[in-house]
Amino acid sequence: MKFTIQNVLTVTDDAYATVDVQIVDGKIAAIGSNLDVIGTVIDGTHQMLLPGFINAHTHSSEMWQRGAIRPLPLELWLAALYEFSQLNLEKVYLSALGTAVETLLSGGTSVVDHLVLIPGQEFETIAAAIRAYREVGIRAFIAPLIQDESLTAGIPSGETQQNHEPYFRSTAATLEIIEAVVQQFHRPDEGVSILVAPTGIQLCSDALFTGCIELSDRYNLSRHSHLLETRAQEKLAQEKYGCSAVEHLKRIGYLSDRTSLAHCVWLSEADIDILAETQSTVVHNPLSNLRLGSGIAPILKYQQAGVNVTFGCDGASSNDSQDLLEAIKIGSILHNVTDLDYQQWITPRQAVEMASLGGAKGINFADKIGSLEVGKNADLVLYDLTHLSLLPRTDPIGLLVLGRPSNVVNSVWVNGKQIVADGRVTTINVDDLRQKIFHQSQWDTQRQSQTVAQLAAHYRSVMGLNQ
Amino acid sequence: MKFTIQNVLTVTDDAYATVDVQIVDGKIAAIGSNLDVIGTVIDGTHQMLLPGFINAHTHSSEMWQRGAIRPLPLELWLAALYEFSQLNLEKVYLSALGTAVETLLSGGTSVVDHLVLIPGQEFETIAAAIRAYREVGIRAFIAPLIQDESLTAGIPSGETQQNHEPYFRSTAATLEIIEAVVQQFHRPDEGVSILVAPTGIQLCSDALFTGCIELSDRYNLSRHSHLLETRAQEKLAQEKYGCSAVEHLKRIGYLSDRTSLAHCVWLSEADIDILAETQSTVVHNPLSNLRLGSGIAPILKYQQAGVNVTFGCDGASSNDSQDLLEAIKIGSILHNVTDLDYQQWITPRQAVEMASLGGAKGINFADKIGSLEVGKNADLVLYDLTHLSLLPRTDPIGLLVLGRPSNVVNSVWVNGKQIVADGRVTTINVDDLRQKIFHQSQWDTQRQSQTVAQLAAHYRSVMGLNQ
Repeated sequence: MKFTIQNVLTVTDDAYATVDVQIVDGKIAAIGSNLDVIGTVIDGTHQMLLPGFINAHTHSSEMWQRGAIRPLPLELWLAALYEFSQLNLEKVYLSALGTAVETLLSGGTSVVDHLVLIPGQEFETIAAAIRAYREVGIRAFIAPLIQDESLTAGIPSGETQQNHEPYFRSTAATLEIIEAVVQQFHRPDEGVSILVAPTGIQLCSDALFTGCIELSDRYNLSRHSHLLETRAQEKLAQEKYGCSAVEHLKRIGYLSDRTSLAHCVWLSEADIDILAETQSTVVHNPLSNLRLGSGIAPILKYQQAGVNVTFGCDGASSNDSQDLLEAIKIGSILHNVTDLDYQQWITPRQAVEMASLGGAKGINFADKIGSLEVGKNADLVLYDLTHLSLLPRTDPIGLLVLGRPSNVVNSVWVNGKQIVADGRVTTINVDDLRQKIFHQSQWDTQRQSQTVAQLAAHYRSVMGLNQ
Repeated sequence: MKFTIQNVLTVTDDAYATVDVQIVDGKIAAIGSNLDVIGTVIDGTHQMLLPGFINAHTHSSEMWQRGAIRPLPLELWLAALYEFSQLNLEKVYLSALGTAVETLLSGGTSVVDHLVLIPGQEFETIAAAIRAYREVGIRAFIAPLIQDESLTAGIPSGETQQNHEPYFRSTAATLEIIEAVVQQFHRPDEGVSILVAPTGIQLCSDALFTGCIELSDRYNLSRHSHLLETRAQEKLAQEKYGCSAVEHLKRIGYLSDRTSLAHCVWLSEADIDILAETQSTVVHNPLSNLRLGSGIAPILKYQQAGVNVTFGCDGASSNDSQDLLEAIKIGSILHNVTDLDYQQWITPRQAVEMASLGGAKGINFADKIGSLEVGKNADLVLYDLTHLSLLPRTDPIGLLVLGRPSNVVNSVWVNGKQIVADGRVTTINVDDLRQKIFHQSQWDTQRQSQTVAQLAAHYRSVMGLNQ
C-alpha cells in the first residue's frame, strides 16, 4: 500500500512548508519537495496535513447519556449517571462507533477509552468496543475502568461516620479479568492496546493499584487513571492517606513515563513537581471540568514545570460531545484568565503539538505516532483550508485552533489506511449508525434522580454549601 | 404569506410540547394542537422549534483577521488588529455576509454589529453592511463603532505621563454622521435598526456619550457600548473619573433598559446593583474574554442581582468564529467553576432563554421577538433532532446547549420569511461567498507586529508584569 500526498501545507518549527509526503506500508517514507510519485496521488493543494490528535481520555458508553444530566458536580452527576438503565453489548458497540466517528471528524486518529464494563460481561464489553474500533479503523487504547470500592466511598466523610457497601467483585477477581483481557486483546501492532486503568484513588484500594502496576510491568502496558478531578477528591485523599493523592501514588509506584492522568485539577506545587519528576502525563479535559464545575486545571504551571500535557474529551455525558477541536480550543484559551502574563499563554502551535505528540507520549507511543516524521506510522489528517470556517486565509493553525471549524476534515489515515475521504467515514455506514442510535433511545425530558436527592444533603454538608 | 409548521417539538416552562404553529404575515398567529393547516405545510416531526437567538455583540469586519493574531491581552491585541491593511467596502460587505451566515447556521436570527467604520467612508461602510444583512435576510442591529480619543488613551498611564494624539475627527462631526445615518437607515419595521454605540469609556469623552444619549432619546434608539472588559480598563476608569466606569455612566445617564453593555468582566458589587437598578443588559462574550485573557465575567452574580444577561460572539478575530451555540455553551458552563453551589449554575433551558428573550430585551425588542408567542414576529429556528450530534434522544435542549451540535439548523425564518432551508442559506450563494473570501485573502503566517512591540513595555509596566 503506497501513496503520495502532493503539494500539501505542513507545519515546521516556526512556519509552514508546502511539501510532498510518501506513505509506504503504513509508514511515512519521505517528506520533501518534488518527491517522486509512488502509488496513488492525493492532491494536497489548499489543504493542511497534521499528525492525528489523540482523544486521550473518554468513556465511550457515556454517549448514551449525553445531554441528559442537569448541571451537577462530579459526585452527584455520577450518582445520576449510575441510575440510567443498564448498558448492553449492542449499546457499547454503537457508542464506541459514535465516539470513533466524532473523534475522527474533529482531527483525532487515536482514542483512549476508559471503558465502563458491564458487570458479569467484562470480557464481552471490551470485545464489543474493540470490534467497533477495528471496524472504523481508528487506533484504540482500551483502558478498562476498574474499581474495588463502592460509589459512596468516593465522597469524603467529613465529620460523619460513613459505612459503604463492599464492592460486588473482589480485587483479585478484577485483576484476573484484566490479565485475561490483556492476553486476548492487547495487540499494539494491530492498532489495539490495553492499558491498566483503575478509576482513581477515590474508588480503588492500594491492592488494586499495585496489582495494576505489576500487570503493567509484566506486559509492558501503559497506565491510566483519573486524578484529583474535584475538590472533594482532594479532601478524600487527605482523609484516606493523610497526604495528597499524588504523594500516595508516587509512594506506591503508579507514576511513570507511561502513566497518563485525567483531569489533575487540584494539585499543589509539590504535586506538580512529582508529576514532572516521574514524567507522568496530564490529560486535560477542559469541557468536562467546566461542565461539572470541577475547576480549572493549572495547565500553565504544568507546562512551566515541564510536565507533558495533552487533551481529552472525557465521556460524552460530561461534555457533552466528542469534538477534539473544541477540547483543544477551550483547553488552550481557558488558561489566559489564570495567568496575567500573556507570554505564558498556550499558542495555537503549542496546542497542536500537545494534542498530537503530547498525547502519543502519554500512552508511550511517541516513537510511533504524534508527528510528521519519516519512519513514524501514517496516522494523518488532511484539513480542507477552503472551507468557510477556515477562511479567510490568515494563519491556518490559528484558524484551526482558535476558530470553530466544522466539516473541515477532508481525509484521515490510520496506519496508512484511509478511513475518511471527502469528509466522510468510509469504513462504516454512519447514516445506519445514526438510525440505530435514534431507535435505541427515547426522548426523556422529565428525569428526576432519586440517588442525587439522597446524596445531596451529605454532599452539601461536607462541601460547606447551604442546606 | 402563510404557513403551518406541524407536529414540532417546542419548549414549555418545565417540559416540552408537540404542537402546530401557524405563521401569518410574518407573525406567529397560533400555537396549539391539531390546528388547521393554513398555507404551506412544514413537517416538524423529529424537529425542535425555538425562537432565534440574538448574536448580541460582534464586529463583523474582524472576520478578515480571524486566526491571525497570537494570544495577547485586549490592549495589545487591539494594536495588532489596527495594523492590518485597511478595510474596504467590498470587504465590509463580504464579512457582514459571512457573519450573518455563521450566525444563522448556529441558531441566530438577529445580529448586533458594533461596526468598525472606514474613516472618511462612514456612511458607505454602514450602507455596505446593511446591504449584506438585507440580502441574507437576517435581522440587523447596526451599532456604528465610534470614539473620539486615540488608541493609546485606552491604556492606563500608571505613574507615567502619557501624551496622546488627538483623534482625527471631532466629537461633533461624529455625532452628525450618526444622526444622518439614523435618518437614512433606521428602519426597525424593515429589519434594520441603528443603535448609538460609543466604543467605551476607554476611548470616548463624556461629550460623545451625552451626544449619543441625546440621539437615543430623540430617535428612540437602543444604546450599546463595551464596558469594563479588562483589568486595565478598570484602572483607567479610576484614573479618568476617580470612580468606577459604571458609576460614571450612571451619573451621565447612559444606562437604561435599552442599554446593552458588552463584556462587563470587572464590575464591583456596587456596580452590579447599578446595572440591576437601571435595567441595563450585560452581553456576555465568553470566548473572547478567554481568548484575550480578559477574565470571567461574574454572570451568576448578575443573575442573582436580577440583571438581564445575553450572549455575543464578539468580533471574529477575538473568538475566532461566529458560532452562537459555542458562545452559549461556554458562556453557561464557564461559571460552574466560579461558584461551588451547583444550584446557582445556569441550566440549558435558562441559557436558551438568555440567548433569545434576554437578547431581545437588551435591544428593546422583547415585545417583538425572543420567544414563541402569538403576536410576535416569526424569527424562528428549526433544529433537526435526528442529526448524529443531537443523538441519542435524551433531552433536546441539553444536547443543543451542552453538546457540540453542527449542521443541525434545518430551517430559519426571519419575520416569517424562510432564509435557511434544508440546512442551507437560500437567499445568497454561500459557495460564491466562500470563493470571494478565499480570493480576497492570503495566508500570512509570519506576521510580527511593530505596534505590539512598541506598546508592550508600557503595558507590562502598568500591569505589573515582568519586563
